[in-house]
Amino acid sequence: MKAEVAAIATVRSPRKDLADDFWGAVEADIVLDEAFDETAFFGLDDFTHVEVLFLMHRVDAAKIEKGARHPREREDWPLVGIFAQRGKARPNRIGLTRAMIVKVVGRVLTVRGLDAIDGTPVLDVKPWMDEFAPIGVTRQPEWATELMRDYFKD
Amino acid sequence: MKAEVAAIATVRSPRKDLADDFWGAVEADIVLDEAFDETAFFGLDDFTHVEVLFLMHRVDAAKIEKGARHPREREDWPLVGIFAQRGKARPNRIGLTRAMIVKVVGRVLTVRGLDAIDGTPVLDVKPWMDEFAPIGVTRQPEWATELMRDYFKD
Repeated sequence: MKAEVAAIATVRSPRKDLADDFWGAVEADIVLDEAFDETAFFGLDDFTHVEVLFLMHRVDAAKIEKGARHPREREDWPLVGIFAQRGKARPNRIGLTRAMIVKVVGRVLTVRGLDAIDGTPVLDVKPWMDEFAPIGVTRQPEWATELMRDYFKD
Repeated sequence: MKAEVAAIATVRSPRKDLADDFWGAVEADIVLDEAFDETAFFGLDDFTHVEVLFLMHRVDAAKIEKGARHPREREDWPLVGIFAQRGKARPNRIGLTRAMIVKVVGRVLTVRGLDAIDGTPVLDVKPWMDEFAPIGVTRQPEWATELMRDYFKD
């Protein structure tokens, strides 16, 4: 089953290159495509956070992993399936991050902590609602905690 | 900017029809497409929750909202932009939910609380890591809290 998706916005970020860490303090603009007017963002500033879905367009399609790999090619970390990690080289190349809303001005949403480089096509923006948080206790393996240690640091 | 996406899995759920509420106790299977083997899920059972991205394929493309609308057509709720709500009839029709992992057996991931009906194409599965939770205090408007009241109830 295939479908076509189209960018609804584009990221404007000071981060021009792929990098693994320190996304916490990065402020970026999400600029709506011209097919949308500012009504598409009406009321967004009543929320504090958004979920941003984006296309990791710089990932080489030939390098997409369909089985298991070591996260960040660290052989001291376990071999885990592509759907048990958040690596970029994944089928459909869709990235997903929660970011803090800084401001909304017309067709431009400014956020903090978005790990998408300049020029990234955005597929969707959803407001964060607390009811969508994981229900119950969460647990994750040690390699994931280690990998994430500096990821959203300032 | 357009791109083609392909289902990586399909939802098998007791819920066959679109419904607005009471998704909390629903158990569903996410069955990997035959292009994948079980290695794609290796290590997923070290996590408790996943984020599931899916295509809301039953939404009529002609009904997609690009501006603002009342959530659930409730005129007593404010007119909000499509990117300030989580309604189905949205550009690219991508749904996103966190669900609890019940078990992983071969190419089948069983989850609890997935608000996708039987037959829904899945675009991605990502493990939940606590570092991806919203940073800082969260806030949302009253209509959103009211709308979500029974959504993930058992």
